[in-house]
Amino acid sequence: MNILGFDIGGTKSIVGVADESGRVLAMRRLETRGALGPAQALDRMKAAAHDVVEEAGVRVDVIGIGCGGPLDRRSGTLYTVPNLPGWEGICLTGEFGGEFGVPAYLENDANAAAMGEHLFGAGKGVDDFVFLIVGTGIGGGIIANGRIYRGYGENAGEIGHHKIAPDGPRCPCGDRGCLESLASGTSIARIAREGLADHPDTILRQWTSSPEEVTAEMVARAAAGGDEFASDVWSQCMRNLGIGVANVVNILNPKLVILGGGVTKAGEMLFEPVRTVVKERAMPALAADVEIVPAANGDLMGLMGAFAVAVEAQL
Amino acid sequence: MNILGFDIGGTKSIVGVADESGRVLAMRRLETRGALGPAQALDRMKAAAHDVVEEAGVRVDVIGIGCGGPLDRRSGTLYTVPNLPGWEGICLTGEFGGEFGVPAYLENDANAAAMGEHLFGAGKGVDDFVFLIVGTGIGGGIIANGRIYRGYGENAGEIGHHKIAPDGPRCPCGDRGCLESLASGTSIARIAREGLADHPDTILRQWTSSPEEVTAEMVARAAAGGDEFASDVWSQCMRNLGIGVANVVNILNPKLVILGGGVTKAGEMLFEPVRTVVKERAMPALAADVEIVPAANGDLMGLMGAFAVAVEAQL
Repeated sequence: MNILGFDIGGTKSIVGVADESGRVLAMRRLETRGALGPAQALDRMKAAAHDVVEEAGVRVDVIGIGCGGPLDRRSGTLYTVPNLPGWEGICLTGEFGGEFGVPAYLENDANAAAMGEHLFGAGKGVDDFVFLIVGTGIGGGIIANGRIYRGYGENAGEIGHHKIAPDGPRCPCGDRGCLESLASGTSIARIAREGLADHPDTILRQWTSSPEEVTAEMVARAAAGGDEFASDVWSQCMRNLGIGVANVVNILNPKLVILGGGVTKAGEMLFEPVRTVVKERAMPALAADVEIVPAANGDLMGLMGAFAVAVEAQL
Repeated sequence: MNILGFDIGGTKSIVGVADESGRVLAMRRLETRGALGPAQALDRMKAAAHDVVEEAGVRVDVIGIGCGGPLDRRSGTLYTVPNLPGWEGICLTGEFGGEFGVPAYLENDANAAAMGEHLFGAGKGVDDFVFLIVGTGIGGGIIANGRIYRGYGENAGEIGHHKIAPDGPRCPCGDRGCLESLASGTSIARIAREGLADHPDTILRQWTSSPEEVTAEMVARAAAGGDEFASDVWSQCMRNLGIGVANVVNILNPKLVILGGGVTKAGEMLFEPVRTVVKERAMPALAADVEIVPAANGDLMGLMGAFAVAVEAQL
């Protein structure tokens, strides 16, 4: 079985072909240019898809698509997706399935990425795990009893929006003190930015000409270099990430918590404090059960997820 | 199929017989007297079981047992259970199954109660819900895709021990700021007790001769009567309970959150503020999916749970 996969993001997309073991036969990255409207973007994706199929030199049997939600998985249609203005009502399974004359399946990107880690990544063979994507926001997917857990309305896994500081900072979701508002890449940068004025000695001020330029990656780099202010911001955010993970561990008793997304590129600077907090703060029996590990699919987590969506649909 | 059920608590137990639809044919309450050691208590439970079987006038086909954990469900054996000192290593399925010569199944009490609501209570026919027992502590059980979700190490559902105020009060689990430490019956009483000295006018001081006598039930009653201090304590605890429920809604997207346990006897004084907080603070799509309802099995939630454990084991 050969799979055509689409990882559709707000700014970048990836189209690829893989066999059912997840071995990538060909792939191409492209700018989504979603703001220009769906018609042009979809045409460019279809053209890229024909290119990769030709390059792979195989017949495609099925299509998997991962895309930011909210969306209606069953009909393959997007609702109002914040990152893809004007795409509301677009039936992605119809567009791509029709183009190639094969069945197509759609899943939200976080669930797809969790499924990708389950079939082809760090969660291979593991029936019970949680996947957290710590990037611009914090997304999540739950694998329970060996399958993605979607919940009643197919929106389970919004782990980034559980509150650990109910009077805390505003979150993009509209509430306050969600894990995302305290530990996402955007939040790490924001917390650093807010403290810059009070910390004239931080190297972050030398690296930037205005507070708006501070990124989470800079905070991590400055912390790694021993900058005291950046270290404090980083530690505070990692403590909160650890508390969020400990909460998930107590609620779901997973065997693994897999962490992926841009912020996890910090490596042990992230994993070490998160593991320490979970060990200290999750219930002992549950803390003993869990391992906290990096995602295996890296930048391809969306594409590998799209392949997994197609494979899981055949099961 | 007729079921013999045992609901074994730290102070009280219930033994009963039901048919497979959960209709109770006979039941008996007894003091556990667990502190005297298991031998005597088990003898008294077995005697009570023979009495109810005789009273029901049926042949028993299977036994279900709910008991406080931690325990090893597969072997039917207790680990070190805080409420049953000296019972470590007791094989409850062997004790009761052997006595009646039928298969016996053990489950921790919170999971059993969730299963009881699923088969015989407020969650009948609902595939995705969360059950919270708000009593002395806060216990939980998760029904996912129509089955109890146990997680990797069979300890999923410790919803009472997710942290919503990481620097908050000490919790019996050893950590700080868990939902249980902010909204259980014990915690409601503790928070009121701690504030008594600063609130000379509260009626709670007239009702008690020392702060230790204050109970959650008194706080609810005083709040219902308009006592300002008791109302403040109650509101604060209900807000925290609502935040905990909102977190579970965002993580699991359930169709129902069923609330049971002693504190829920406060009725609308509890449900109204919890529903309001969830509506305000869970993500809109997920808040719209969920109903927050009282448990149906009331004081018999443990016994109905024990029956459900036996029924589910036959599936």
